[in-house]
Amino acid sequence: MRRLLLVSTSTVHGTGYLEHCAAQARQLFSGCRLIAFVPYALADHDGYARHVAERFRDWDLELVSVHTEKRPADLVEKADGLFIGGGNTFRLVRDLYAFELVNPIRRRAERGMPYMGTSAGSNVACPTLGTTNDMPIVAPPSFETLALVPFQINPHYIDLDSASTHMGETRDQRLAEYFEENHRHVLALREGAMLEIRGERMTLRGVPGGKHFRRGANPREIADGADLSALLRD
Amino acid sequence: MRRLLLVSTSTVHGTGYLEHCAAQARQLFSGCRLIAFVPYALADHDGYARHVAERFRDWDLELVSVHTEKRPADLVEKADGLFIGGGNTFRLVRDLYAFELVNPIRRRAERGMPYMGTSAGSNVACPTLGTTNDMPIVAPPSFETLALVPFQINPHYIDLDSASTHMGETRDQRLAEYFEENHRHVLALREGAMLEIRGERMTLRGVPGGKHFRRGANPREIADGADLSALLRD
Repeated sequence: MRRLLLVSTSTVHGTGYLEHCAAQARQLFSGCRLIAFVPYALADHDGYARHVAERFRDWDLELVSVHTEKRPADLVEKADGLFIGGGNTFRLVRDLYAFELVNPIRRRAERGMPYMGTSAGSNVACPTLGTTNDMPIVAPPSFETLALVPFQINPHYIDLDSASTHMGETRDQRLAEYFEENHRHVLALREGAMLEIRGERMTLRGVPGGKHFRRGANPREIADGADLSALLRD
Repeated sequence: MRRLLLVSTSTVHGTGYLEHCAAQARQLFSGCRLIAFVPYALADHDGYARHVAERFRDWDLELVSVHTEKRPADLVEKADGLFIGGGNTFRLVRDLYAFELVNPIRRRAERGMPYMGTSAGSNVACPTLGTTNDMPIVAPPSFETLALVPFQINPHYIDLDSASTHMGETRDQRLAEYFEENHRHVLALREGAMLEIRGERMTLRGVPGGKHFRRGANPREIADGADLSALLRD
């Protein structure tokens, strides 16, 4: 049974790291002891791992980063749960391939290992990296990612600022471009929102909510508590 | 002698299409008759070409879109000048490769054919697409682009909004991530700014100016009229 927690942002303005999703994270990892951490979205792996391990220690979980292992996949095999942190999605995907983690993570998550992602870590749970907001600072070997869910997530979703005079694309224009080339549904999660997935059930959590975008249809607002299970069957 | 006009945005808020760069565009294309247009950054090639041809007609230039030709490269060979319009950089790069335009455009531009780009069209004049702001809605076969200049451009540059509570990366954070992985200089152009390149001389034009980012150094402000020729020699 799939158990995923896909979070828009690790940190909500004015609160601590992972504070807004602590209850959901602790529930996801209840019964776990050892959590494998994937730090590749940031450049400073040691610093990132230290920071995250401290947070997980508060939850009585031992977090070990895959970059400290000779064979990162070995840690994925033996861990009780997995957390992929945010940063740059292109860099993360490049390294998931470079360290041969795509298949091991996918296999274990499909068989029920609790998986948590924030921001870039939520992007890579989707079929492709096509709805990331990040700058393409490196070229990954493929845009295909873990495909733990059949839809796309757009994290850090932000509504349009109608007072803006900036001509660069708004988020909604970017997503409209996505649908000119793709068919998959997109769940755009505002900061503070997350998806909780257990087997065949998916629920949106977090007061800021989000928006469900589809090709050829107006986006519809989704609120805290919304049952989105139908999207898992697409 | 290289002759390039690389523009941050096609349209500045409150003015018409290409209005803010009309003087520079007309100077670039003076003596030209037929301009080849590359519409691939947008989905609607016909509509895009119609819109742009109208603007160029005001300047007594005949603009023909490469998508109307059986062999797009033939038009590039026989045109007097080239214009690549903005839209989604990933889609543009995919199609530059798909229609085998990368080498023909590079060759002709290096030999002095006037080249104008706006937004995505300026991005692809650089060595890679690595400093685009666009969403990766499709996977191009390579991140390498035309390399008509040895540095990177970040179009639609926008200064940080210190009042924002949004946790998604600011533009400066995105560029800092770029330098964690890359060495090339980046010229970030505010909307209304452009680079005028003739042979070994490069000048910034446009009152909004921009910023010159380098790895390991503080960005420095660049103003209308700044001589940036040294960056062509890097």
